[in-house]
Amino acid sequence: MIETGRVTVPTDVDVIDATIEIINRWKADAIRDCDGTDMPEELRKMDIKQYATYYTTRKDNAWAKANPDEIQQMYLMSDFVTARDTELKIQIMQHFYSDQLKPNIKDNHRWWEVIDRTTDEVVTNWDYDEETMEVIIHETIPYHAYTVSFLAFVIWDPVHMYNALTNDWKDEEHQMTYDVRQPKTQKYVLDKFRKFCEERDDVDVVRFTTFFHQFTLQFDEFAREKFVDWFGYSASVSPYILEQFEKEVGYPFRAEYIINKGFNNSTFCVPTKEYRDFMDFQQREVSKLAKKFVDICHEYGKEAMMFLGDHWIGTEPFGKYFESIGLDAVVGSVGSGTTLRLISDIKGVKYTEGRFLPYFFPDVFHENGDPLKEAKVNWVTARRAILRSPVDRIGYGGYLKLALDFPEFIDYIEKVCDEFRTLYSHVNQQVPHNLLKVGVINSWGELRRWGTHLVHHAIWYKQIYSYTGVMEALSGFPFDVRFISFDDIRKDPSILEDMDVVMNIGSAYTSFSGGAEFDETIITALRRYVDQGGGFIGVGEPTAINRNGKYFTLYDVLGVDKELGFTMHTDKYNWEVHPNHFITEQLEHEDWGECINNVYALPGTEILAEKDLHVNLAVNEYGKGRGVYMNGLPFSFENVRLLYRAIFFAAHKEDEMKHWYSENYNVDVNVYPSTNSFCVVNNTYEPQTTTIYKGDGSSFEVELAECEIQWFEI
Amino acid sequence: MIETGRVTVPTDVDVIDATIEIINRWKADAIRDCDGTDMPEELRKMDIKQYATYYTTRKDNAWAKANPDEIQQMYLMSDFVTARDTELKIQIMQHFYSDQLKPNIKDNHRWWEVIDRTTDEVVTNWDYDEETMEVIIHETIPYHAYTVSFLAFVIWDPVHMYNALTNDWKDEEHQMTYDVRQPKTQKYVLDKFRKFCEERDDVDVVRFTTFFHQFTLQFDEFAREKFVDWFGYSASVSPYILEQFEKEVGYPFRAEYIINKGFNNSTFCVPTKEYRDFMDFQQREVSKLAKKFVDICHEYGKEAMMFLGDHWIGTEPFGKYFESIGLDAVVGSVGSGTTLRLISDIKGVKYTEGRFLPYFFPDVFHENGDPLKEAKVNWVTARRAILRSPVDRIGYGGYLKLALDFPEFIDYIEKVCDEFRTLYSHVNQQVPHNLLKVGVINSWGELRRWGTHLVHHAIWYKQIYSYTGVMEALSGFPFDVRFISFDDIRKDPSILEDMDVVMNIGSAYTSFSGGAEFDETIITALRRYVDQGGGFIGVGEPTAINRNGKYFTLYDVLGVDKELGFTMHTDKYNWEVHPNHFITEQLEHEDWGECINNVYALPGTEILAEKDLHVNLAVNEYGKGRGVYMNGLPFSFENVRLLYRAIFFAAHKEDEMKHWYSENYNVDVNVYPSTNSFCVVNNTYEPQTTTIYKGDGSSFEVELAECEIQWFEI
Repeated sequence: MIETGRVTVPTDVDVIDATIEIINRWKADAIRDCDGTDMPEELRKMDIKQYATYYTTRKDNAWAKANPDEIQQMYLMSDFVTARDTELKIQIMQHFYSDQLKPNIKDNHRWWEVIDRTTDEVVTNWDYDEETMEVIIHETIPYHAYTVSFLAFVIWDPVHMYNALTNDWKDEEHQMTYDVRQPKTQKYVLDKFRKFCEERDDVDVVRFTTFFHQFTLQFDEFAREKFVDWFGYSASVSPYILEQFEKEVGYPFRAEYIINKGFNNSTFCVPTKEYRDFMDFQQREVSKLAKKFVDICHEYGKEAMMFLGDHWIGTEPFGKYFESIGLDAVVGSVGSGTTLRLISDIKGVKYTEGRFLPYFFPDVFHENGDPLKEAKVNWVTARRAILRSPVDRIGYGGYLKLALDFPEFIDYIEKVCDEFRTLYSHVNQQVPHNLLKVGVINSWGELRRWGTHLVHHAIWYKQIYSYTGVMEALSGFPFDVRFISFDDIRKDPSILEDMDVVMNIGSAYTSFSGGAEFDETIITALRRYVDQGGGFIGVGEPTAINRNGKYFTLYDVLGVDKELGFTMHTDKYNWEVHPNHFITEQLEHEDWGECINNVYALPGTEILAEKDLHVNLAVNEYGKGRGVYMNGLPFSFENVRLLYRAIFFAAHKEDEMKHWYSENYNVDVNVYPSTNSFCVVNNTYEPQTTTIYKGDGSSFEVELAECEIQWFEI
Repeated sequence: MIETGRVTVPTDVDVIDATIEIINRWKADAIRDCDGTDMPEELRKMDIKQYATYYTTRKDNAWAKANPDEIQQMYLMSDFVTARDTELKIQIMQHFYSDQLKPNIKDNHRWWEVIDRTTDEVVTNWDYDEETMEVIIHETIPYHAYTVSFLAFVIWDPVHMYNALTNDWKDEEHQMTYDVRQPKTQKYVLDKFRKFCEERDDVDVVRFTTFFHQFTLQFDEFAREKFVDWFGYSASVSPYILEQFEKEVGYPFRAEYIINKGFNNSTFCVPTKEYRDFMDFQQREVSKLAKKFVDICHEYGKEAMMFLGDHWIGTEPFGKYFESIGLDAVVGSVGSGTTLRLISDIKGVKYTEGRFLPYFFPDVFHENGDPLKEAKVNWVTARRAILRSPVDRIGYGGYLKLALDFPEFIDYIEKVCDEFRTLYSHVNQQVPHNLLKVGVINSWGELRRWGTHLVHHAIWYKQIYSYTGVMEALSGFPFDVRFISFDDIRKDPSILEDMDVVMNIGSAYTSFSGGAEFDETIITALRRYVDQGGGFIGVGEPTAINRNGKYFTLYDVLGVDKELGFTMHTDKYNWEVHPNHFITEQLEHEDWGECINNVYALPGTEILAEKDLHVNLAVNEYGKGRGVYMNGLPFSFENVRLLYRAIFFAAHKEDEMKHWYSENYNVDVNVYPSTNSFCVVNNTYEPQTTTIYKGDGSSFEVELAECEIQWFEI
């Protein structure tokens, strides 16, 4: 069976012959242009699927300049500034990049908001000095801190700016953004897009990069990234939109609904009612408008593909309006197993495509760069998740010319493409065999499916790596992983009954651990669930909120709590570590991530790992169910196995673990009933041997070369 | 100048000759009996001051048994128990020691309280089954957690129990406690005490051990310590007292005012209004009653000495009623410089006495014990504080017989006694020369002078050692150290103006860092103080409360904040460590104690020490003043010096530091203007050399033997 296709290659006017060679070697069936590259005329007529990137909100400065009121806007907050007297001047643009952002002073007393952050009161007695760009606040109270929330025009598209700076594009005109939601611009852009479709009959797939609203991305006065939130809605605002929003929800809009204390509604904040309302409103409006573009594509016989990134805000592929857009495909950047599934798990499109790393940009493809290594790490990491839920295509982006200088890289990608096609044929677009059902409980539920604990796409942060390791482990497990919101449980607590194990993962008070979400309904639903036989795994500061004498709300289920200082007077005698437990059987090099500090076991709890009077791992029997506490879980295959065992333990299914199981934790087993096949896959860069247990419990030995994947009949 | 006296020796009937020998060698001028020992008849007529321990609340089981209603009581809280059905039985005495505590079931529906801890609501539909000792709660809500707060009789005095268990006293009848506050017992005890005074004309000093209410001390079912709070008022309650309290404050009493979520009003909790009311009421009543005993002492020509420990609750030596008791002396156990000053700083008595460690009990004085080492550490540690604020006497306690088996120990104490008398003569009961004024700001102020961050007397806890190191350092500094409460500042913010530096030390939300105490008045007062030139040093999680977008309320003064997860999206570029700073000039072995995690510097702040993206030490200019942030400060002489330098830096007085200063941080200099003398003291067990700077800035070299103290004229 010789498979071809399922691969997209980037091209440019300076690599025409090379593109053809790469297409042949990688057996690609699609080519694409990118931001900063052009599809060569010579290739446009080639018999291969042609993607064309399309930007609905930029690359037309003439329009932007002619319609300055319809340039996109973003809510910004000034620094906190402490008054020393009864008048305070705040330079609102201090620490922002003035080439990117420009205050919108129109109706500023309606849309801006000055807040006394010491008392949390709105202040109305202020003026704005256009020349100095200062808000002058009158009658300030000395030693109170004030902030100014204000609207600013996005006069340089943040992604264009990032690309221009990263590639050192000289004399590049700054691409301005315009707001397609506003009628005048909307008509202009739709007409223009129709014209594009008419003119470019060479284009098979319009690759929208993307729709209308950029995720929040602000730069500081040195053009360094100042604020980034891949999920942020701050740049999806304008008075036009906000007035519509007001009409719909029936209450007046406040800047603070977007600014939220300066947190800009980080996904780590438990979402406010107003922010949820706004997100919902935006999703509906964005979906409606995106559909117009998609319909035009279809009218001209083209496919519509959305890039999950850049201006993706409001599309929410796991939201309730996404399917109504009618897209043919979604493509997104793959930085890990988690981000792979952020794409591959999307429903309501014909196919998904993963754009693999490294991107062909000079930050990696330079003399001392090692793109081969990055590609290997990226592929092997993503492959774990692909084997559970494959994207339908893979591809690359950037300047092909840069990649050509690295022949070993080109060779490696050739193998990757073949391997991808083989495994794709085995999965056969069916759900692989799942052994268990695991629920992840947080404020967001399915809306942030695989998007939990992310700040920016697959970037490491000290405060999240202990949690993203859990997500990464889950992304490759043979489990049906559901994301359950607190609201889902409130609506129907029986949703839990279907789960073998539920998890609550995160730092105290965040949307991922829940904080104030732990109301009576949630508490009783979860206790009942575990008491009646369910498994509950808490990681980090699960269920934490300092209330009613306890910090971990489900202290009784988890068997641990955290000492904040108020119960130091209570002697704590339970510190004995119990060796030889089912969960820790294969654990040799403990790595629990960032220490949570001061977690102690309640009497009766079984500690499995402890350091310096801090519990790292503990288990607790609770009625017919079980609680497991874990400090954190940085990603490593040893930790992945630890979690795997913990889940089987929590589910009371230790006896069932050794089915479709590899004794060596560097090796995974995945089963595809629809093709009667299973694979054994070495996730490491060294040879591995292991014992594989099949579904009937019988076992056999396997030797695997580095990164190798072997296929068997069931 | 041959000084004698100022030393108290414990004795017993089995060591009469030895006592005389020890008196001569140690040049003691007082002898005493202890719990479990008796003053020998032969010594009672000796021409030496005679102390007699006196117990107002125990050692009379006949009375206790005849008046079971007047046995002392303690508020206890059951475990948190989660209901699984609509009825819940809670065994209230589970995990308490039934030989120590016995429920008082009289009027239990008035004095007990059943709380649904899931909703924080009081539940009234319950019964108590005397036989099973269960509270049966009806109509419980499944999966809510409930607690029972109840009164229990203290049928074995906790200290007697501790002493009996520690010394393995066989067949010792458990000493019951009785409540001297109640009229019948009060009359009986006062009469009995008068009789004692009449009969024992050999006694010069009545050493009350102590007055009426034991600090909170509960034992578990295995007779292990279960709960200990040296400052706790839980054992100072009875319906008689509580009814009086109700009348006085004009609102009905609730068990929860004492129980406080099960925290039992830990000193680490920001005190509630009701708890403050109760403490104040108790102080007044205890002082009034204690005065009656003191007056009788004086009537019979005896001195009244109070032991600061055991039943000391309500006396509050730093409270506003203490002086009215009219005591002649206070004696207390010395476990550190901090606890030394807890005694020596007491005003309103003629003299103070430090009872030094080790106590002559078999837990230290056994075959493998090293009492000499404990004595050395204890003496050298306490001496730092004595040189700032001396107790007027020193003494020892326990079984002298045990100490006699350790001749090196006896020799060493002989030297200690001589050294103490020498230094005492230099201090001359005047205030030594102070270089700066430093204020420690917390919820308690002077009431907990030197009692901050203590759980139990000088005991190490993981959660406090990073903070107690600061207190220990301060206890020996040539500074005037004030403890300022938030209420003090609210009453008169100008109190701050007098301070060179103020400090805020502790974990988030505790009474020592302040949490919710940071209201508008406090925030503006502190900002103004620093802005106008004051110094502010924050240690741990100073001023922390998650509110209005910041965690450290004085983020602007300190120049740092703590990342809780909500501002991860904001890029943090300030990580450069600045070497060669005034504060860190002598710092070689960094030890910041328990890591706080995730503290980051704001732009403009100067980081002096950092590890793993966590700031350990940073400084910030704020107006004319300065802020300093410190992760923590375990006690070591290097850290003591670090704090010393930080205080001079924060005070903007770097230039003044090298006056009365030792270049070697293991050596202290103390100056006594009233005797025109100063001393140079080696705080270590090795010889030291150093350069000493005098008040005029001139310097000289000194060599000191281990622990040596040398005296000079100014």
